[in-house]
Amino acid sequence: MSHIVEKVVAGDVRTVARLIRDIDDGMPEVREVLKGLYPHTGRAYVIGITGAPGVGKSTLVDQMVAHLRKRDKTVGVLAVDPTSPFSGGAILGDRVRMQRHSMDQGVFIRSLATRGHFGGLTQSTRSAIDVLDAMGKDFILVETVGVGQDEVDVVRSAHTTVIVVIPGMGDDIQAIKAGILEVGDIFLINKADREGADKTLSDLRLMIDMDQKKYDRGSWKPPILKVQAVFDKGITEFLEEIDRHAEYLATTAGGLQTRGTRDKVSQELGEMIKARLIEEVIDRLTESGDFDRAVESIVKGKTDPYTACENLVFPILSSSP
Amino acid sequence: MSHIVEKVVAGDVRTVARLIRDIDDGMPEVREVLKGLYPHTGRAYVIGITGAPGVGKSTLVDQMVAHLRKRDKTVGVLAVDPTSPFSGGAILGDRVRMQRHSMDQGVFIRSLATRGHFGGLTQSTRSAIDVLDAMGKDFILVETVGVGQDEVDVVRSAHTTVIVVIPGMGDDIQAIKAGILEVGDIFLINKADREGADKTLSDLRLMIDMDQKKYDRGSWKPPILKVQAVFDKGITEFLEEIDRHAEYLATTAGGLQTRGTRDKVSQELGEMIKARLIEEVIDRLTESGDFDRAVESIVKGKTDPYTACENLVFPILSSSP
Repeated sequence: MSHIVEKVVAGDVRTVARLIRDIDDGMPEVREVLKGLYPHTGRAYVIGITGAPGVGKSTLVDQMVAHLRKRDKTVGVLAVDPTSPFSGGAILGDRVRMQRHSMDQGVFIRSLATRGHFGGLTQSTRSAIDVLDAMGKDFILVETVGVGQDEVDVVRSAHTTVIVVIPGMGDDIQAIKAGILEVGDIFLINKADREGADKTLSDLRLMIDMDQKKYDRGSWKPPILKVQAVFDKGITEFLEEIDRHAEYLATTAGGLQTRGTRDKVSQELGEMIKARLIEEVIDRLTESGDFDRAVESIVKGKTDPYTACENLVFPILSSSP
Repeated sequence: MSHIVEKVVAGDVRTVARLIRDIDDGMPEVREVLKGLYPHTGRAYVIGITGAPGVGKSTLVDQMVAHLRKRDKTVGVLAVDPTSPFSGGAILGDRVRMQRHSMDQGVFIRSLATRGHFGGLTQSTRSAIDVLDAMGKDFILVETVGVGQDEVDVVRSAHTTVIVVIPGMGDDIQAIKAGILEVGDIFLINKADREGADKTLSDLRLMIDMDQKKYDRGSWKPPILKVQAVFDKGITEFLEEIDRHAEYLATTAGGLQTRGTRDKVSQELGEMIKARLIEEVIDRLTESGDFDRAVESIVKGKTDPYTACENLVFPILSSSP
């Protein structure tokens, strides 16, 4: 395993690509590699970009990459795609993404599909972030569709979380904004030339200010910026806000409280335990045939699923707590 | 517990409301009630309605309720809201939802928020469906934001799954459509008076037909309907398609293969086991202090999270497989 670790740390693109694919496929062997890579992580700055479909996240990420490259920073991009639970595989493949950066050695772009694997999206994304971090990328951009617990968990791994909206998305947008409001460090109104941008801005401002009182996010007041990613308008200012937030995290006690190492480690370890536990137990129950027998019994009406569940779970846990 | 079961089966609204709130809050006591309710379930017809924010799901559900009530059917509505991981609680409360049905005894409407509880959205929604089913509702409408694995899992509990889109939502909509395409039994283009409705219809038709070849969904060919929920246009035809799908499920072998009892039980039991397992184990690790010690060790750089995870998980599993 150690030669894979060495190759990743040396930035070998093919090794990294294969490793991320293995992570996405849920291969158990990657765990040993990840253990070896762990001491090489913690240097990259991770930015989560999230928002509903249609807000232009891909274009925005593309522009961010271009700007960061102008600063001579290396960039890793993880595009977390909502994909089919049946057919697997990222629909929006890496091929169609950001082709203009495809020949740039300082940019590494991958999609993560991960459906149906234990631990799912969050685990795979975290592991992939670790790999790009160990590979030496200065910035890692994680793009997700910002709805659902999975996606919220994913962006919580980021140092700076960016929420992207567009003007006038209807009333339902309120629900999303509310759901993800508290994890947003910077808000972008993309396609800001559209009608209603100012209304969206004032609505957002109001919601964030109300939220500020409810939840202690330290002294950071999330800025709201109007941008037009497709015309490269406002991106420089946007990246300056990211710098400002990074500075805030590095220097402010409030920042550390919100995104502190201990909280983050605690959350990530908890999720890792869940994923691992499920993997081990489902394997055992499937191999022993106990699971199939329980299904049979429920189908025949001999038992209810709640009782069947307890009968399967309790014997598998060791009696000493 | 048996008096609660009796009250639910008798349709007592206050008991049902409290039970669903307890489910949403993750109270362990509800399990015994759910066991008792199980023999009374299996009669309701469950319809999942899903789509991105802004497509008009709430209005559509409101119209469906009105139409089903005209047929003298009783209806339960579960609105699954994406909510804050921190503050909890459904932002779009029941109060603002479908007020015109609020005085109708034949309609029962509740939001589910469930964030942070083990098993999450899917478990709570399934349990709430069981409750409304046992309560005697003829139809149960489950409304979700259709992105993310959680939501896909939720709609898979339904007999008929309806995917709602609107014309011209941009390129990103392709990703969602692809992700959720295979779970859709009926597709609706709402706000069909908007520009681009015919283009959306032909795009969707193409995608579904391609998908049809990839995945065997029996002989059911998902219809695509243009509706305008806000003007009550096309809703009658939409409900007729639901009838046709119900008929298909009841009479066709292909239908049973796709949504067969065994597959459904198997999937639901699997998820229930995962949820229960996590609950038991996290409790033990938290109470013993092992979890905190592991976090401490990672923070201090004495171990990596992958190793710490294994050291916590393996001792808790009984040695006999």
